[in-house]
Amino acid sequence: MRTIVGVMGPAESATAADVAAAAELGRLIAENGWVLLTGGRNCGVMAAASREAHEVSGALTLGILPHPSSEVAPDVDLAIFTDLGEGRNHVNVLTSRLVFACGMSAGTLSEIALAIKAGKDVILLNAGQAAESFLAQLGGPRIHRAATPEEAVAMARRILRG
Amino acid sequence: MRTIVGVMGPAESATAADVAAAAELGRLIAENGWVLLTGGRNCGVMAAASREAHEVSGALTLGILPHPSSEVAPDVDLAIFTDLGEGRNHVNVLTSRLVFACGMSAGTLSEIALAIKAGKDVILLNAGQAAESFLAQLGGPRIHRAATPEEAVAMARRILRG
Amino acid sequence: MRTIVGVMGPAESATAADVAAAAELGRLIAENGWVLLTGGRNCGVMAAASREAHEVSGALTLGILPHPSSEVAPDVDLAIFTDLGEGRNHVNVLTSRLVFACGMSAGTLSEIALAIKAGKDVILLNAGQAAESFLAQLGGPRIHRAATPEEAVAMARRILRG
Amino acid sequence: MRTIVGVMGPAESATAADVAAAAELGRLIAENGWVLLTGGRNCGVMAAASREAHEVSGALTLGILPHPSSEVAPDVDLAIFTDLGEGRNHVNVLTSRLVFACGMSAGTLSEIALAIKAGKDVILLNAGQAAESFLAQLGGPRIHRAATPEEAVAMARRILRG
Repeated sequence: MRTIVGVMGPAESATAADVAAAAELGRLIAENGWVLLTGGRNCGVMAAASREAHEVSGALTLGILPHPSSEVAPDVDLAIFTDLGEGRNHVNVLTSRLVFACGMSAGTLSEIALAIKAGKDVILLNAGQAAESFLAQLGGPRIHRAATPEEAVAMARRILRG
Repeated sequence: MRTIVGVMGPAESATAADVAAAAELGRLIAENGWVLLTGGRNCGVMAAASREAHEVSGALTLGILPHPSSEVAPDVDLAIFTDLGEGRNHVNVLTSRLVFACGMSAGTLSEIALAIKAGKDVILLNAGQAAESFLAQLGGPRIHRAATPEEAVAMARRILRG
Repeated sequence: MRTIVGVMGPAESATAADVAAAAELGRLIAENGWVLLTGGRNCGVMAAASREAHEVSGALTLGILPHPSSEVAPDVDLAIFTDLGEGRNHVNVLTSRLVFACGMSAGTLSEIALAIKAGKDVILLNAGQAAESFLAQLGGPRIHRAATPEEAVAMARRILRG
Repeated sequence: MRTIVGVMGPAESATAADVAAAAELGRLIAENGWVLLTGGRNCGVMAAASREAHEVSGALTLGILPHPSSEVAPDVDLAIFTDLGEGRNHVNVLTSRLVFACGMSAGTLSEIALAIKAGKDVILLNAGQAAESFLAQLGGPRIHRAATPEEAVAMARRILRG
């Protein structure tokens, strides 16, 4: 079975820094031979991570779409159509061996919370100070904080080696 | 159509203060003639709010259960079995006109995040300082903070009057 | 906990006979003190059963809606918004103690199949000869066939008495 | 985006003929360069199609699992964990460009019904006479019947060419 890792983050509200970090995560995920999972829509962190992982670095990319009519990011190889709306966030988390949260938004927060609940490790990037303090307190040792995509992926390698 | 309001909060990890506040919310929700929605399981905030609303105060109580085999709180009148696991949190939020979050846990946080995403008002009780600051920043004017169940229900009346 | 029974059947494609049978089922369900569950939309079998059960006979009516934006039948007391699309058919079945299938359509058939899978009794009305033979063969003793709503409800009483 | 086709069929209740046909479908799907989607569990039609497609013929295989704890067929490359129970059947159908139904069971029937509802083509193999007559009547031109896996895949090629 292939190792699937998730990159979650803001859609329309992604900042330039979120998008740049997501692209870098996509590249590093490809280099590690992992399959990239995102929410699959054609915007923000989802599109940036998928583009870099797939087009530039040849990785396999999975997108878990909220609805059959959702616009799919062009660099998603395998589009899984759920018709669950934001409920698909739960599938994103359960299917990922671990979750990179890149930036912060309500949808991203729901994925972080569901990941904690499901016992998955979460690596925060660009979450902001208030989020980091609160989530570290809530999630305990499963919540990690990285300053750069490189550091985040190094953490992921250690976690996946178990 | 009846007005349904949700009370979300910790299950096994609920504190005594969470349980007491949930019971008081249940009583006040019954007095206002609203239908109480919870996650339906027989523990923590769900059970306490349902018991007080139903047994003591005669309200109608809905429970949205994660699985067909979930143990239902005895004071749930109408048990909705989803087989969605924590994905049922999305149904809880979409079905509630507004959400009372009573205490804090990973599951509760996922409901708050999904509520913000769905444009629902959320009234925080016993969330703690770190959560309140962060969520107010993330959710904007839809995030409210109450010091007591009475204050929370007074806020809810104003919100529902629109 | 209240006894919830489901009435499933065609939406836009319901025949006059399906609608008349659904209304009669709604009336008889109310007379038996059961809570009526339907798919909640404002058409076909869902709307007819809910109207007769609620408006005429004072029963409590639950509607399990496919999406937050779905138009709700006016006689649904409690609207449960799932955002599951046709996936909500699984919730309909799991939440019903037994299922009345009134008429036939692709959606109705999915509910019958999911009910068989979940070990629920299904009472067929207006299903047609080809459906009845095939489903009796597939579902075994859980599949029942009634010629009239009265006969269907009499069967349901026997099943619920267990 | 890669072309995903679904093979649905009985799990524990699969006949030897169902399993043989599923394996042959798996081989032919691989030869056509399509991605195979199944329900992902380690039994019946799901396991047989995945094994032949993946191990023998090198295709990419997707499994959409009902729960995080489901036992995954060993030849599933990408395991999507839904926690939807049988509700994942809706995801199976929405994600498949078309559906091969190989054998018959309650779960398989729910997938055929959801596929008709979603406007997907369904190719029946080993469905039995009663099922074929009834489903052809219900589903109209979207329901196809094949005598062999070779015929089924030839039909699929024509359908996918549009």
